[in-house]
Amino acid sequence: MTASPRFETRLAITATAVEAMLGRILGDAPLPGETGRPERLLAAMRHAVLGGGKRLRPFLLIEATRLFGVENDGVVRAGCAVELVHCYSLAHDDLPQMDDDDLRRGRPTVHRAFDEATAILAGDALQTLAFDVLADPATHADPAVRADLVLRLARASGLGGMVGGQVYDLAAEGRWSADGRPLTLSDGEIRRLQAMKTGALLRMPLEAGAVMAGASGEDVARLGRFGAIVGLAFQIADDLLDVEASPQAMGKATGKDAARGKGTLVALHGVAAMRAELARLVEAASTELAPFGGRAETLLAAARFIAERQS
Amino acid sequence: MTASPRFETRLAITATAVEAMLGRILGDAPLPGETGRPERLLAAMRHAVLGGGKRLRPFLLIEATRLFGVENDGVVRAGCAVELVHCYSLAHDDLPQMDDDDLRRGRPTVHRAFDEATAILAGDALQTLAFDVLADPATHADPAVRADLVLRLARASGLGGMVGGQVYDLAAEGRWSADGRPLTLSDGEIRRLQAMKTGALLRMPLEAGAVMAGASGEDVARLGRFGAIVGLAFQIADDLLDVEASPQAMGKATGKDAARGKGTLVALHGVAAMRAELARLVEAASTELAPFGGRAETLLAAARFIAERQS
Repeated sequence: MTASPRFETRLAITATAVEAMLGRILGDAPLPGETGRPERLLAAMRHAVLGGGKRLRPFLLIEATRLFGVENDGVVRAGCAVELVHCYSLAHDDLPQMDDDDLRRGRPTVHRAFDEATAILAGDALQTLAFDVLADPATHADPAVRADLVLRLARASGLGGMVGGQVYDLAAEGRWSADGRPLTLSDGEIRRLQAMKTGALLRMPLEAGAVMAGASGEDVARLGRFGAIVGLAFQIADDLLDVEASPQAMGKATGKDAARGKGTLVALHGVAAMRAELARLVEAASTELAPFGGRAETLLAAARFIAERQS
Repeated sequence: MTASPRFETRLAITATAVEAMLGRILGDAPLPGETGRPERLLAAMRHAVLGGGKRLRPFLLIEATRLFGVENDGVVRAGCAVELVHCYSLAHDDLPQMDDDDLRRGRPTVHRAFDEATAILAGDALQTLAFDVLADPATHADPAVRADLVLRLARASGLGGMVGGQVYDLAAEGRWSADGRPLTLSDGEIRRLQAMKTGALLRMPLEAGAVMAGASGEDVARLGRFGAIVGLAFQIADDLLDVEASPQAMGKATGKDAARGKGTLVALHGVAAMRAELARLVEAASTELAPFGGRAETLLAAARFIAERQS
C-alpha cells in the first residue's frame, strides 16, 4: 500500500503554508520589543529552518486539530514552534562535536554555511523562539492552553525527551566508553532511546493539536498513543533508509549506522523482521484511531506515509 | 557607600534558598512523564548550575515580588528559571568556539569537566528546563501569568535579547571581520549590545516579579526601567572589574577585554568617567523607585551592590 496522491497533495500544501508562516516568524518583521537584530544570526536561523523539509511535525499537529474540526493560523504557528525545536536540534546535532555532518536536505549544514559559533547560537535562539511562539496570544486565545503547550514542548524536547535521547545515542555509539567502542543495547534500551530522541517530538504535536482543539482528556491520550506508534514507525523507517537508501535520495549521508556499529532495531533483528513490525505498527495506528472513523483518514495516511517513506 | 551587612545577609540567604530549589529542579526527583534520565547529561547540567554564584537574577525577581508583599515557592521557582537560562548561556559562551574559557566560578567550565558535546547538550536542556519550570502550575496558579513569564523570558533571551547580544559581541571582537580585527563601536552601539547581552536578563526578572505579584502595568513598567538601569550598571561594573580585578577575586580570567581590543564603555570613555556614570545610575535607580518609599530599600541596596561589587 502506498500513500494516496490526495494525501501527498495535502502534505505539500501544508508544507507550503508552514514554510510561509516560518518565514514570517523568522523575521520578515521585527519581533515586539526588539531593539536590535544581528543579521548574521537571523540569516543562520533562516538557513537552519527555511527551504524545504516535509514539515511532518507541523502537519501532524495541524491534522490532529482538524480531526476535531479546528483550523486556524494559531494552529499553524504551534506547528511551526515544534518545527523550530526540530531544526535547532538538527543544527546542533550536525556540529563536528556531535554527528559531524556537512549536508542536510542537500545543502550545507549551518556550521558549514556559517561557522560553529554561529550554528550554536542560531540553535539556541531557535529554541527560544519556539517557546516565544507558543506563549504568544496569537497562537491560542486561552492562556491555559498556551502554558500547557509550552510545558508539553519542554517535556518532549529536554532532559527526559529529545536532548536526553541524543545523549543516550552518543553514549551508544561509544562516545564515552573507556575503549571508544559502541555499547551493545538491548531491544528495550534502543526503544527507550528512540522514544526520547525522535519519538517524543512526533508524539507531542499530536497531543498538542488535540489540546488546541479542546478535545477531551481521553482523546488527547488516544492521540498520544497514536503518536507513540508513529514515532516508533518513523525511527524504524529511518533506520531502514540508512541501510537501503542512497545519499542522493536522502540529501544527507547514509550507511552511517552500520559504519559506527550503532545499535538499531534493524541491526538487532534484521530488515525483514522490522519491515513486518512496520506493517504491525500501521495496523495498530489504525486500531487506535478507529473511534474517529473516516475523520482520521489523513492521520492514518500520515502513519502509512511515515512507515513507507523513501526519503 | 558600600552595601549594608543586612543586604549581604539577605542576598546570601536567598542564594541558599535558590540553590536548594535549583537542586530540586535539577533532578533530585524524576520529572513528570520521564522515561529515562541520562546521568551524564544531568551531571553536566548540575555542574553548570549548582555550587555557587550570587544568584542575582533570582534575587531581583524575588525582591521585586516582595515589594508587593508576595513571597512563596513559586516565586523562587521563577527566579530559578531565569538562572537556568543564565547558566545555559555561560556553558555555551565558555565553549572553545565562543569565548574559550577554562574556568568559571573557580571551577572547570562544563566542556572542561565533561566534553564539548555534553556542554552543548547540557546548555540546550537547561534552556528547555527553564521554560518547563515557568509553564508548570507549581510556579503560579494563573496560567495567564505563566504564559506571560514564558514570553518575557523568551524575548529577553533570544534573537532580540541575550543571544542576539552575544552575536553582536562576537562581531565586535572581529570574529567575522575580513581582517579579523575588532570593530570600532560607537557609544550607542556598545549600549545596545550590552542591553541585549546582559541587560535584558537582569531587567526581565524585575518585571516578572511585578507580574507574579499582580502589580499594575505602571508598576511593571517602573520595575522595567529600574531593571534597565541596573543592567547598564552591572555591565559597566563588569567592564571595570575586567580592567581592575585579579583572576583570583573573580574566579575567572580578567584583562580579556583589553587583550581582545574589545569596545567597552570603559575603553571608550575611561575608568573615571564610568565610575561617575555608575554613581549617576545609582541615583537614577533611587529616583525610579521613590514612589515605593522604604519598601524599595532592598532593591536599591541591590542596585548599589551591583554597581560597587568587587567580584
